[in-house]
Amino acid sequence: MDAIAVRRGETTPTLVDVPRPEPAAGEALVRVLRVGVDGTDHEVLAGGHGGFPADDDYLVLGHEAVGVVADANGTDLDEGQVVVPTVRRPPNPGGNDYFARGEPDMAPDGQYHERGIVGAHGFMAEYVTSPAEYLVPVPDEAADLGFLVEPISITEKALEHARAARSAFEWTPESALVLGNGSLGLLTLAMVSEGVDRTYCLGRRDRPDPTVDLIEELGATYVDSRETPVAEVADAYEGMDLVYEATGYARHALDAVHALAPNGVAVLLGVPDPWEIEVDAGAFHRELVLHNKALVGSVNSNVSHFERAVDTLADLPEGFLDELVTGVYGLDEFERAFADDDTTIKTAVELSTR
Amino acid sequence: MDAIAVRRGETTPTLVDVPRPEPAAGEALVRVLRVGVDGTDHEVLAGGHGGFPADDDYLVLGHEAVGVVADANGTDLDEGQVVVPTVRRPPNPGGNDYFARGEPDMAPDGQYHERGIVGAHGFMAEYVTSPAEYLVPVPDEAADLGFLVEPISITEKALEHARAARSAFEWTPESALVLGNGSLGLLTLAMVSEGVDRTYCLGRRDRPDPTVDLIEELGATYVDSRETPVAEVADAYEGMDLVYEATGYARHALDAVHALAPNGVAVLLGVPDPWEIEVDAGAFHRELVLHNKALVGSVNSNVSHFERAVDTLADLPEGFLDELVTGVYGLDEFERAFADDDTTIKTAVELSTR
Repeated sequence: MDAIAVRRGETTPTLVDVPRPEPAAGEALVRVLRVGVDGTDHEVLAGGHGGFPADDDYLVLGHEAVGVVADANGTDLDEGQVVVPTVRRPPNPGGNDYFARGEPDMAPDGQYHERGIVGAHGFMAEYVTSPAEYLVPVPDEAADLGFLVEPISITEKALEHARAARSAFEWTPESALVLGNGSLGLLTLAMVSEGVDRTYCLGRRDRPDPTVDLIEELGATYVDSRETPVAEVADAYEGMDLVYEATGYARHALDAVHALAPNGVAVLLGVPDPWEIEVDAGAFHRELVLHNKALVGSVNSNVSHFERAVDTLADLPEGFLDELVTGVYGLDEFERAFADDDTTIKTAVELSTR
Repeated sequence: MDAIAVRRGETTPTLVDVPRPEPAAGEALVRVLRVGVDGTDHEVLAGGHGGFPADDDYLVLGHEAVGVVADANGTDLDEGQVVVPTVRRPPNPGGNDYFARGEPDMAPDGQYHERGIVGAHGFMAEYVTSPAEYLVPVPDEAADLGFLVEPISITEKALEHARAARSAFEWTPESALVLGNGSLGLLTLAMVSEGVDRTYCLGRRDRPDPTVDLIEELGATYVDSRETPVAEVADAYEGMDLVYEATGYARHALDAVHALAPNGVAVLLGVPDPWEIEVDAGAFHRELVLHNKALVGSVNSNVSHFERAVDTLADLPEGFLDELVTGVYGLDEFERAFADDDTTIKTAVELSTR
């Protein structure tokens, strides 16, 4: 069957021919419909994140999938059911406590594989297998955009952890700043716009730009980081109750604290490379303490976040989603899904249709 | 009546003669028994923290008090009741939402006074008045050491916020590192030793030293920061589920992230001055994200934390408390309570006796 992979030593995706997988006991066979492409895929391609499965000289890409159960193989799933697979898998058959308690997203380095990212092949193939427990059912209507469930689940977890960090006192966020106008930033902006009065999204694009248009259509304020760096946002606009970092720009973890309002929380999702900078560590520390601020890192997500993401996807405005997804490409032109230009927001590869 | 104050332009405490306060409606008059001295008092004396009440050229010191109700003045308190006052007060008669909902500890800069620290006279006087709602009753047995309720309440809040930040998943801390072997660090070490298997306390003292002895009597491991800086603790010992920062050394906010185990939380309490340093912002950011770590600042505490602190104080080992409190001094030798040498751990000034 066809699959899209990156070969060891290469930095671009390639069509490969691999055997169709056979579901083991407890696994279902899934016919893949669509697989989204995101920043992590580009990092994997560039070799900056992730790793190949042991003994293989290629990695099938893709961790944002939606598919249809082709062979339930004795599991509780129904054939024809639309499903979205989670990403993390135990690195060995025995599993570990994190997986046992349904929190693989909290497993440390070395205690998980991530399909399409590190140690295990991804979903960008005509068929994939997965233990049924990692296949989250979604309504038929979500078949087209179900590849957005995974990125939405990332934000569900991040926001859950941010709220938890503020749960020891009365906290009702009225202002939120999303750092990054990529697809995850925009999805998050749409999600927080539901419950937060004043929203802002930071990018560095000149108008006219489709992401700036989307930001403004969501009722948010576009902040151009070339004019207003993160550390100056509080002065230029207002202190933010919530900051969501989705760029991986290393300075943001430090500067976000100064963008926060008192009692605010910044949640970090980007994964930067090492970068030595000069920073006022005293001001950073002091500000965290005197204004009860919090900084929370968040990675991956678990089944509970996927389940919430299914509901969130159903609630997002259709017009927004139409503009967000700038292209869905078949196997004959899959390279276009990996474009990284200013007209591309969110893309997917289509492996098959319902 | 006698009081101990710092005069504008001076950096040492002075005995002053001030009028005995009259309780206003809703306030009780408290005869002060003892008032503890801590690092914040030394910062206030040095002029690095806090500020004088408007229109006064002196500030009565002291925010860690225990006293006896001398005149209930129509409030619900009983005369003779032993009480501990909280520290924050509304900066104006109307108050604000933070005070209204019992969370003055979450009020931002400018929306509170702190008695003995900023904008309002402290408790180091023969008599003080306070609205009854800020006087927390303590058992008679706590009269001698009740001045420890305030510092303990600071840790109650900090640990509450740390636990909250980890409440979105299963988190059972097994290792904890306290940064700082001052009185707050040692009190916190005793508190976390109750529920955490392996505890560590970092300082920079040569043996023999009374704080190192106390650390080891609590079953904790003494970490000498001159040999093992915070950033190397995880390698030298183990990653910590909880780090508690009580020194105000600016680097700690950044280095603590590397001392944490995956999914750990560092709570910051120290208040450093500005200090520009070189830091690997990328590694800091990345480590927070990939291992779901959190950094939480915490300042002050509210009545609920004082109430919990009363119970905690009753549970702390008597032998530990005896060694912690190295001196209680009357007005005739109050200067000794402000000593800052290696044989002093925790001191108090005694204003009157029961």
